[in-house]
Amino acid sequence: MAAPVKVYGPPLSTAVSRVLVCLLEKDVPFQLLPVNMARGEHKKPDYLKIQPFGQVPAFQDDSITLFESRAISRYVCEKYANQGNKGLFGTDLLEKASIDQWLEAEGQTFNPPSSVLVFQLAFAPRMKLKQDENVIKQNEAKLANVLDVYDKRLEESRYLAGDDFTLADLSHLPNVQYLNGTDVGELFRSRKNVDRWWDDISSRESWKKVVEMQSSPPPKSA
Amino acid sequence: MAAPVKVYGPPLSTAVSRVLVCLLEKDVPFQLLPVNMARGEHKKPDYLKIQPFGQVPAFQDDSITLFESRAISRYVCEKYANQGNKGLFGTDLLEKASIDQWLEAEGQTFNPPSSVLVFQLAFAPRMKLKQDENVIKQNEAKLANVLDVYDKRLEESRYLAGDDFTLADLSHLPNVQYLNGTDVGELFRSRKNVDRWWDDISSRESWKKVVEMQSSPPPKSA
Repeated sequence: MAAPVKVYGPPLSTAVSRVLVCLLEKDVPFQLLPVNMARGEHKKPDYLKIQPFGQVPAFQDDSITLFESRAISRYVCEKYANQGNKGLFGTDLLEKASIDQWLEAEGQTFNPPSSVLVFQLAFAPRMKLKQDENVIKQNEAKLANVLDVYDKRLEESRYLAGDDFTLADLSHLPNVQYLNGTDVGELFRSRKNVDRWWDDISSRESWKKVVEMQSSPPPKSA
Repeated sequence: MAAPVKVYGPPLSTAVSRVLVCLLEKDVPFQLLPVNMARGEHKKPDYLKIQPFGQVPAFQDDSITLFESRAISRYVCEKYANQGNKGLFGTDLLEKASIDQWLEAEGQTFNPPSSVLVFQLAFAPRMKLKQDENVIKQNEAKLANVLDVYDKRLEESRYLAGDDFTLADLSHLPNVQYLNGTDVGELFRSRKNVDRWWDDISSRESWKKVVEMQSSPPPKSA
């Protein structure tokens, strides 16, 4: 059996958990390596060799090291095409293009306001940091506009890229999970098709496992 | 001969010009269709059918319509793999993964501060809008940090993903072209390897053609 791939970073990170749920969907065995961000381990020379921006996750598979959660996810789907969820990144050029389009929409249009709101509403209170009401309002309005487009799209098709759950849907799981437990959760629940889609994708076994990992105590850092 | 692909949007848009330079690198004939954004054509129902977020560009090739410039670029490289610049998106899984990693770094890490600075420093003065000095300072600092990582990377390899010019480098052309003519151009010129890289990639025939299209008067809107 091949050695498991390695994922560096805490599962509480949205970008780390994006990679984990992808690996679980693809039945790819992995080893999770702790990076103690509170102690600044992500800014140390050894870590910067594999992730030069000092962010999580970093990823290793045999001789290749990669960063950027969406790039890692695409690689995992291509490399392990014939195992696990085989349609996760489509099976031909047109399916792939449609999935990639919505994956980019997630990265470029959904993620910017969502990740700000995750920080302000979910992380800042835990870290005892002051929230910025103006920033919250602005990003809530941006997110509402994005979700209006999603709601229309999800009226036409069960998932973002068509009839099947794909990388495009998967990539939204980490941010929505956090937002759902905050005041802006209503933005998702008040839109019929978005609400139905969220219930569907968040109840997948792969994602439930990641949520479980997020609530387990972290392994001790080396 | 196949019908040319269609690109909707003005070449002055950074996202439109990203797609145009990709099509020129791949020798893919295209037709550029104007979208008069000043008149709000990008928010009209017919256009929203192909670009539901009301942004440019939109793209059509035979029966497929796509949005998101980086997703369109990946599709163009896959569909037209055997023509033009054949290495633009790599030729095997590992090359592709490395290119995709740096393309994501552009989209997620380089583009956010860069696109804010392009708006503030290049577009706002033309549109007679007030510039926000705080926003400029914050994003200049973020961009400087990104360019420190790039300068180190470009010390080790000629281009971001290795020895060859790829989609990862190409994707930077539109923002850097604008920033180069502003006060923050110095951030690029003061870093030896970034400066050498920019001179190299911006002197490609494909990009020179796009810059020429940007300075031509726009075709009349239908």
